[in-house]
Amino acid sequence: MAMQDDSPDQERIRRLVQDRAQAVRVKDLAGATAANASDIATFDVLPPLRNRGAEGIRERTQRWFDGYPEAPGYEIHDLHVVVGSGDAAFAYYVYHVSGTLATGDEVDMWVRATLGLRKQDGDWRIVHEHDSVPFDPESGQALIDLRP
Amino acid sequence: MAMQDDSPDQERIRRLVQDRAQAVRVKDLAGATAANASDIATFDVLPPLRNRGAEGIRERTQRWFDGYPEAPGYEIHDLHVVVGSGDAAFAYYVYHVSGTLATGDEVDMWVRATLGLRKQDGDWRIVHEHDSVPFDPESGQALIDLRP
Repeated sequence: MAMQDDSPDQERIRRLVQDRAQAVRVKDLAGATAANASDIATFDVLPPLRNRGAEGIRERTQRWFDGYPEAPGYEIHDLHVVVGSGDAAFAYYVYHVSGTLATGDEVDMWVRATLGLRKQDGDWRIVHEHDSVPFDPESGQALIDLRP
Repeated sequence: MAMQDDSPDQERIRRLVQDRAQAVRVKDLAGATAANASDIATFDVLPPLRNRGAEGIRERTQRWFDGYPEAPGYEIHDLHVVVGSGDAAFAYYVYHVSGTLATGDEVDMWVRATLGLRKQDGDWRIVHEHDSVPFDPESGQALIDLRP
């Protein structure tokens, strides 16, 4: 399978993902949401079942940041980008979120993430994002301590 | 945004998703896994955190089918396909799973799904799949009864 691992678009999308992660690590709201398409559709770790629209995502991201008095740790692992020859691409990876919430609770969680991207006016934009953890079918509990 | 909703590839991917759902509804293992690339990487509703390889996915699908004495209900809703001009594409939707497990438990659950696809030798293949439900941060419980 031709993964075109060294194509310019592959490199641009990798940089987009890493730049966004860096923005999260300093609670830079503009940087963390800069690549979102205006009509982005997301499936988030927390409810509701789905969200749509960049403005709502921006508000959710701000609330998430507000939960951390210090910026959270946020590290991308095992990033795969599939970009092919055209203007649609997707990426998937796991990330590690860590830190202390305003409530005093410690967070140390691995999350799966998938991004759907589209090149719009020459720039790659995130038009879809899906973040989640699996759950234990016996207890119904979300499994936030699984490690890759 | 040019969604190319009427392109032949858009139509082929929509058919792939619906054909797979129909295969699930009759517990047709070959049909339910026919579009999977050999090196498919999945993030599933249930643990582990991630899976890789078509053979393992086939075994998981068989075990899932085995849990239902009668085939499960499985309905795709709000399917979006983004295919663009090249050989990479992604799709996202929610699906409703219903039925009675061998244990007697009733299932009536809405799940979010994202597929990453790649055209290989002229055929679209699923190289990545991410399925999940969100969880309640207060209780830590997976939210299997959220409706779209």
